[in-house]
Amino acid sequence: MARARRVGEFELIARYFAPLARDFEGAGGLQSDNAFLPADARRDLVVKTDTIVAGVHFLADDLPGRIAAKALRVCLSDLAAGGATPFIYQLSLALPSTWEEAWVAAFAKGLAADQRRFGIVLCGGDTVVTPGPLTITITAFGRVGRGEGVTRAGARAGDEVWVSGTIGDGALGLLAAQGALPVLTARQRAFLETRYRLPQPRCILGPLLPGVVTAMADVSDGLLADAGHIADASRLAVSVERDDVPLSPAARAAVAANPGLWANVLGGGDDYELVMAVPVRRREALQAAARRAGIRITCIGRFARGTGVAVTSCGRIVEAPRKGYVHF
Amino acid sequence: MARARRVGEFELIARYFAPLARDFEGAGGLQSDNAFLPADARRDLVVKTDTIVAGVHFLADDLPGRIAAKALRVCLSDLAAGGATPFIYQLSLALPSTWEEAWVAAFAKGLAADQRRFGIVLCGGDTVVTPGPLTITITAFGRVGRGEGVTRAGARAGDEVWVSGTIGDGALGLLAAQGALPVLTARQRAFLETRYRLPQPRCILGPLLPGVVTAMADVSDGLLADAGHIADASRLAVSVERDDVPLSPAARAAVAANPGLWANVLGGGDDYELVMAVPVRRREALQAAARRAGIRITCIGRFARGTGVAVTSCGRIVEAPRKGYVHF
Repeated sequence: MARARRVGEFELIARYFAPLARDFEGAGGLQSDNAFLPADARRDLVVKTDTIVAGVHFLADDLPGRIAAKALRVCLSDLAAGGATPFIYQLSLALPSTWEEAWVAAFAKGLAADQRRFGIVLCGGDTVVTPGPLTITITAFGRVGRGEGVTRAGARAGDEVWVSGTIGDGALGLLAAQGALPVLTARQRAFLETRYRLPQPRCILGPLLPGVVTAMADVSDGLLADAGHIADASRLAVSVERDDVPLSPAARAAVAANPGLWANVLGGGDDYELVMAVPVRRREALQAAARRAGIRITCIGRFARGTGVAVTSCGRIVEAPRKGYVHF
Repeated sequence: MARARRVGEFELIARYFAPLARDFEGAGGLQSDNAFLPADARRDLVVKTDTIVAGVHFLADDLPGRIAAKALRVCLSDLAAGGATPFIYQLSLALPSTWEEAWVAAFAKGLAADQRRFGIVLCGGDTVVTPGPLTITITAFGRVGRGEGVTRAGARAGDEVWVSGTIGDGALGLLAAQGALPVLTARQRAFLETRYRLPQPRCILGPLLPGVVTAMADVSDGLLADAGHIADASRLAVSVERDDVPLSPAARAAVAANPGLWANVLGGGDDYELVMAVPVRRREALQAAARRAGIRITCIGRFARGTGVAVTSCGRIVEAPRKGYVHF
């Protein structure tokens, strides 16, 4: 029997939830991941909620400390994309009925380590038991200078597309964790798997970028999807030159052995790098910020008038799935 | 096989999560439900997260609009207990894989109605699909005058215990919804069931009480449990005169037919009334606030030096389960 077509997450949000946010300007029509509100005379609060479910967003058998880190870091990555420095967070933990105290202890230890690493502190939350899988919701608060928060909506035609770090490791890491990619060395697979299991949000670089970038997102849904979100929110088109997309040695080896994996690299998610819209005149400021943060950055394309996402290779348009990895 | 004894929610929080909140003063050591942080020169933000799971915290077959209202109102009840006026909220919706668009539409309609009723606006969130039951997490933000937020920790020996509305309807309403309480009329059962399914958070009364009460909580875990939380956080004992606890006519009929139900009335949760510590000299200010809010209030006991929760009837100590309804 055919299943009735259902709307996707973005359509669901636009249709049913964006109208509920109409009367709060800092919600930006739910077009960006973050909400913005005044914190004090000098600063704004940036707020982001993410839910991760065992078996959907992370591997249920992963170590509790790494699950804790992933839950926190996927939010911190959004705060970084908003230009914000981590501040405090609320934690909701829905534990499966088989929960054990040792698991909670290790989970809390993982949170403690990341609190020190990222300078963030727990400020409240809720703990419940569920008949379903482990489900973690974190609402993270960051701080940014008053009015300096970065959204997806400010890109201008002619701005360049830049990304931090390397792209595709997250999606390939999930494959590696599932036992795929036998063509790689064990070391390469381990590298990719760690990139999937333990995101490295760009919390140093992001807060250096207000005034430098015109729009920013983190690469969580997939490079083309997230670049496309910036283009949509900014009412522009975007083109990405595939040959310029920075790959790790492991990812390069994987796509060399199987070029079909380009779809995973460009369309998969979970990289938690930053994708930025940068005016040409700000290129040097961007490079200075990246040096200061010790993060590699790469120019991979350009925003232009129009709509949609195009991918080129050696300047020619190639097929590429814009759609990101859909957890939903 | 005997199941290993496990710690309860409060012990779990004290042992593993309170240490994570040590460096943020506004978390109050996680002893209160709310977190407090500066919003602007004149006001503080009050933040509260609650998660509700189908089949655990609400009946899975309930109407989507009522589920939406319950998810929001359990948070608003905590904000009211903090003395705060509703402001904005983040919503995380983990939908079971069988979700239907019509359900989401009705859920959003319920949120819209409550947004108008309580003056709160959606500001962001997340939507995911789960193999488990419907799980809703709301992080609600309220506002209160700078430094005026009310916690559980300020009660003084000699303060009176006051409650709003009537107590026990929530726990009896759950029984009624499950087909129990045949001794009641259909109308009485319907009244109690509605009290369970659709909390009425005291969002008008709560914000009138900073400067009047010394400590406050909402009755979500159960009257004795929540009065006990205030006593613990304030390092005091509390005694409650059972005969003074205000009951609705339906609840009065239920306990008259079966005095064993006093355990549900005093120990059950989900009333979402306010329990307050009030100095005798502020009694008139309290009564003026209650009149202004149009809410009945009743004095039911007193805080004193010492520890623990005592229940009296005609002045004699009676057995009563302090432990609230444990969802956990």
